[in-house]
Amino acid sequence: MNDVVLTGDRPTGPLHLGHYFGSLANRLRLQHTCPMYVLIADYQVITDRDRPGAIQRNITELLLDYLAVGLDPARVTIFRHSAIPELNQLLLPFLSLVSVAELQRNPTVKDEIAHSSQQAVSGLMFTYPVHQAADILFCKGTLVPVGRDQLPHVEVTRLVARRFNERYGEVFPVPEAMMGERPLLKGLDGGKMSKSRGNAIPLSATEDQTAALIRGARTDSDRMITFDEERRPEVANLLTLAGLCLGREPRALAEEIGYGGASALKRLTTEAVNEFLRPIRRRRAELTEAEARRILAEGNERARERAVATLDEVRHAMAF
Amino acid sequence: MNDVVLTGDRPTGPLHLGHYFGSLANRLRLQHTCPMYVLIADYQVITDRDRPGAIQRNITELLLDYLAVGLDPARVTIFRHSAIPELNQLLLPFLSLVSVAELQRNPTVKDEIAHSSQQAVSGLMFTYPVHQAADILFCKGTLVPVGRDQLPHVEVTRLVARRFNERYGEVFPVPEAMMGERPLLKGLDGGKMSKSRGNAIPLSATEDQTAALIRGARTDSDRMITFDEERRPEVANLLTLAGLCLGREPRALAEEIGYGGASALKRLTTEAVNEFLRPIRRRRAELTEAEARRILAEGNERARERAVATLDEVRHAMAF
Repeated sequence: MNDVVLTGDRPTGPLHLGHYFGSLANRLRLQHTCPMYVLIADYQVITDRDRPGAIQRNITELLLDYLAVGLDPARVTIFRHSAIPELNQLLLPFLSLVSVAELQRNPTVKDEIAHSSQQAVSGLMFTYPVHQAADILFCKGTLVPVGRDQLPHVEVTRLVARRFNERYGEVFPVPEAMMGERPLLKGLDGGKMSKSRGNAIPLSATEDQTAALIRGARTDSDRMITFDEERRPEVANLLTLAGLCLGREPRALAEEIGYGGASALKRLTTEAVNEFLRPIRRRRAELTEAEARRILAEGNERARERAVATLDEVRHAMAF
Repeated sequence: MNDVVLTGDRPTGPLHLGHYFGSLANRLRLQHTCPMYVLIADYQVITDRDRPGAIQRNITELLLDYLAVGLDPARVTIFRHSAIPELNQLLLPFLSLVSVAELQRNPTVKDEIAHSSQQAVSGLMFTYPVHQAADILFCKGTLVPVGRDQLPHVEVTRLVARRFNERYGEVFPVPEAMMGERPLLKGLDGGKMSKSRGNAIPLSATEDQTAALIRGARTDSDRMITFDEERRPEVANLLTLAGLCLGREPRALAEEIGYGGASALKRLTTEAVNEFLRPIRRRRAELTEAEARRILAEGNERARERAVATLDEVRHAMAF
């Protein structure tokens, strides 16, 4: 049987090259072989922020990013979490299958709690792994691309699926985590790549913005360019970025640059990134916001049909 | 502005006279002056039971009980919790407004945990006061008839309403608890009245069943009947029951019986109860299960329209 893939993002800002090579590239590959659901996790924004912020704007940008990189709405169901009440209702039976002790033990929740800006842990954050179970199981997802920090969440989903099936009869597949989503790239300042630090290249950046961002990247003064992640992490990071964009080995690029120094490295990287982003920018320019919204509306409708069917199945299994 | 009343029951078995005098009588009064929503709390059955049991049967019986006692489906919206996904979705924004510490402090949850048959406290039970907030606020309930043990739950609802309004703008009324739902009656064996102990008179009992139940009631051997709740609680309980059915003072009934002893007391009580239940039995006999199900379907539809409107308002307020 074919896998069904569930993946998604929080609508907290534009996607950048870190997202592309960390997760979008994987989705672009998978969309050709598997049904895929891409969830825009709007409720998740309020688990660790007091206010949702410019959420409509962020969702539109996210949609434009998805479509520009080549997610195909004919193959992929892109939908908004808050638009699917039947998905969210699954939270109730699922919460009955997990104990408070199990929620307290979840290391990701512990960690998110430690890094939360909120004074106190909200009930939403505490129960978040169970929401994720609803997100994954509503479409009977079997494959969930995740980073290492998300693994314990998928474990909760597996637990919920197994317990539901044991108690009420076989309804859900027990999904597998697909490890591999990870930051291949550091930020241009050598720190963690993050939109809020201004050290990332957004997928929507213009050529000039891209050039300016790379010009400001941290490097070192050694004119001989080498690929040494231990001792020259910033140089290695630019080489990795250029290599990912060109589909080449960073070490070979370093040899090619030789004694050209940071300026040659940055020139090569800028050209590589701009070349890479060119078709993405072109598609983005062709898209209208109205079109993006229409695609989301269609995705919401498809996701909702799926959720209605699953909730009916759940009600039936529970003899409700 | 008129109050909107939210009340309801778990579909765990037929209603009895304790329910009637403890809460149904109050609803019958209120239905003439206020819009009222009566929730059949089916998900609540799985907070403290492993399996939902004969839930369809129980829901049908509950509906027949409601209609037989005189809840008027033209005035009252009777609906099933699991049939309203938009109500349940309110759980997500509401969970973000309450901290784990606040949920842990809730004395009713603490108490339910202590009396739970489950090995561990489920996430559903832990978050139960927030579900109740969704139940009350989806219809903008302003008045919630409760027993003393439910007061802290209404406090959580008030907290959720206030915090939502502060954060996102005025959407919800801050509801008031209407104290007074309380067991006026003890069981026929002198213990807590409960269907599972067989010490309650179901509203659906026949005349003969009623007579047999009262015949088996605990009394004492003092032939002089007096109303003394301290020293003769079982006798006082039968006098209270007869008094409630006849709309008379238990003390006056005791005087009337005088030296008739337990047998006269039981005869009088049986007649009083059967007289009281007569019109209820008659209406029940006129009802068909198909009619009850149709009334529930209509109620579900009305409740769902209300929930869709409220969820839209919530989305709008949150700039979602």
